[in-house]
Amino acid sequence: MNQAPFVPVIPAGGSGTRLWPLSRPERPKFLLDLTGSGRSLLQQTLDRLAPIAEAPPLVVTGAAHAAAVRDQLEGTGARVLVEPSPRNSMPAIALAAAVAEREHPGAVIGSFAADHLVADVPALHAAIAAARAAAAQGYLVTLGIRPTAPATGFGYIERADGADRADRAEGTDGAVGEQARGDLSGTGAEPVAAFVEKPDRARAEEFLAGGRHLWNAGMFVVRAAVLLEELAAELPPLAAGAREIAAALGTEHEEEAVARLWPTLTRIAIDHALAEPLAARGRVAVVPVDLGWDDVGDFRALARQLRAPGAGPAVRTVEGRAGDAEAVDVRVLGAGPVDALDARATVYGSTHRRIALVGVDGISVVDTEDVLLVIADERAQDLAALVAALPPAPR
Amino acid sequence: MNQAPFVPVIPAGGSGTRLWPLSRPERPKFLLDLTGSGRSLLQQTLDRLAPIAEAPPLVVTGAAHAAAVRDQLEGTGARVLVEPSPRNSMPAIALAAAVAEREHPGAVIGSFAADHLVADVPALHAAIAAARAAAAQGYLVTLGIRPTAPATGFGYIERADGADRADRAEGTDGAVGEQARGDLSGTGAEPVAAFVEKPDRARAEEFLAGGRHLWNAGMFVVRAAVLLEELAAELPPLAAGAREIAAALGTEHEEEAVARLWPTLTRIAIDHALAEPLAARGRVAVVPVDLGWDDVGDFRALARQLRAPGAGPAVRTVEGRAGDAEAVDVRVLGAGPVDALDARATVYGSTHRRIALVGVDGISVVDTEDVLLVIADERAQDLAALVAALPPAPR
Repeated sequence: MNQAPFVPVIPAGGSGTRLWPLSRPERPKFLLDLTGSGRSLLQQTLDRLAPIAEAPPLVVTGAAHAAAVRDQLEGTGARVLVEPSPRNSMPAIALAAAVAEREHPGAVIGSFAADHLVADVPALHAAIAAARAAAAQGYLVTLGIRPTAPATGFGYIERADGADRADRAEGTDGAVGEQARGDLSGTGAEPVAAFVEKPDRARAEEFLAGGRHLWNAGMFVVRAAVLLEELAAELPPLAAGAREIAAALGTEHEEEAVARLWPTLTRIAIDHALAEPLAARGRVAVVPVDLGWDDVGDFRALARQLRAPGAGPAVRTVEGRAGDAEAVDVRVLGAGPVDALDARATVYGSTHRRIALVGVDGISVVDTEDVLLVIADERAQDLAALVAALPPAPR
Repeated sequence: MNQAPFVPVIPAGGSGTRLWPLSRPERPKFLLDLTGSGRSLLQQTLDRLAPIAEAPPLVVTGAAHAAAVRDQLEGTGARVLVEPSPRNSMPAIALAAAVAEREHPGAVIGSFAADHLVADVPALHAAIAAARAAAAQGYLVTLGIRPTAPATGFGYIERADGADRADRAEGTDGAVGEQARGDLSGTGAEPVAAFVEKPDRARAEEFLAGGRHLWNAGMFVVRAAVLLEELAAELPPLAAGAREIAAALGTEHEEEAVARLWPTLTRIAIDHALAEPLAARGRVAVVPVDLGWDDVGDFRALARQLRAPGAGPAVRTVEGRAGDAEAVDVRVLGAGPVDALDARATVYGSTHRRIALVGVDGISVVDTEDVLLVIADERAQDLAALVAALPPAPR
């Protein structure tokens, strides 16, 4: 084992209303096999990281999903850390960092969302290797996705230009003692100027054209001790609480410590708690990557996945009848029979009912026991607004 | 009671694949309440005719649907004649005519499809009165719908012009003895030159512009004896068989007679068996009508009905959320909750599931226990092709 072992951390939370009714509060997106691969998004995430893990991956999830997560992770060697209540991403990751640091001194953690897709796993492993080198220098290292479209649904990472880089290096070197940031040359990582909130369309076009902005996919690599020390400077009670809970895990004090401390931890996202303040101080680096990454954030993205060459073996293509095969372009994830006449659509079937499509174009049909959704793919982003307006019970 | 009592005849057959999966072989269109009125199409047909019936209406239906038809007709006074097997419309109507003539000598029958809609019932009654007057003169009298569009899905009735009328009257008067056609003046009916098959679009445009062509809605009024005598001239065994079965009904010979004779009756539509030959001999008259008639032949027609001011009380209109009400135009027939965001659609729900629509335009969604259909209204005519290609079982 490496002297600074790599510990994957996977925060598994969020209910994903943009994929309702496939995803529900009780059956969130990360538990679903959305690509017909035979593995849930969470399992796929672990499958990608397991080959480079040097200690059991830590999956942090809510109490409501702990049993389902444990079921899915059986045999993977991953360990489940349970959040008694949702307190956003920083407490979850801080707890994982504290566990990793306590059990594997010097550990480098790599945190990755449980419900995204990565097509190019070797590229991911190479990027993580580069990030580890930069993390060893004391940086919080993100992987930044090179944009392929002027997306308005993601935050962006702004790379420092050459001048910025030199200036910031001068201005901040040595400012934080023994964890001071070192030289990035040769690591494949480069300094980050800033994190940028989701842009409007015009700015997104500028970002795409300019080449300095990368998609923030919430992937980062950092020494656990660095994360906790930086957090201790920003939010001392949060860092202390996470460390105290980690110390109590597996002891007779666990239950009491969790019950006492968890509810006191600040509800905050890691972006706001750490990434943005550290970027402002020149302590964040980024490895630009092309991973075939997709957050599968809505039905349009999911339809794209099911139409891609790498779609899973469970994805079916509906055949047009003789003579009009070209007029039928339908992908199906689900067991029931699907018939189509001049239709371009994606079908998610979980009821085994027969589904027939005639003359429809660019829609997704989601057929579940209690809900049927028909949505135009180009309006996929609007689904959250509809779901938000629903009465709570039938979700 | 009138000396020549009026007996409504309602052939209730056909499975209506263009409204699948609402209509099925085991639950054909005429048994369905497609307009949210609380009454099936068959019941509505009887409701329209009951006020002018002078003897119990005769409903002719297949053995498979006899029980359901009897259920629906309970309390209406109608009588059900059961076809042991489907043999098209002429045997069914001939049997009804033979029953009517036998039990009500001199009876005038009026035959009307069991699964069409008529909005203007007073106009229907007035048209039937006119048709009875012409029928008393020995004519087979149709009601011809004044076209409101260049429809290609209907046959047409071509009215004789003035010259035609005089010529034909001269040429055929007296040719069939005591049932010879008399004078139409003052009846509101006029002579028919010919029945015309479903036209292509260009001819349909010409028909609409020319004013001489009317839609053939399969409605006709005729003395039962005239129908049977004309049929005896065209297809003697069919007329004789129908009369022999009618004579046996209610006697100890019924079962034997039906079993022996029904399978021998020629499978033929009344249009081909009688209407066309009689028109060629100047023995068909037509009453041009505006009835608000609709054959509800596909989901586009049905959507139009559910959007009309006269839609039944069970038809719901989905409300858009505050601020975007104009972007939601959804009609629902069915019990379950429907939510919509920027959608124009018609929903038929029979499962009580929640149905959500986002960004779809001009579609019908049919949600049944075993089949889900999503169809573009403008492609409604193509549904039959899809249904024809299905395996038999799940229909």
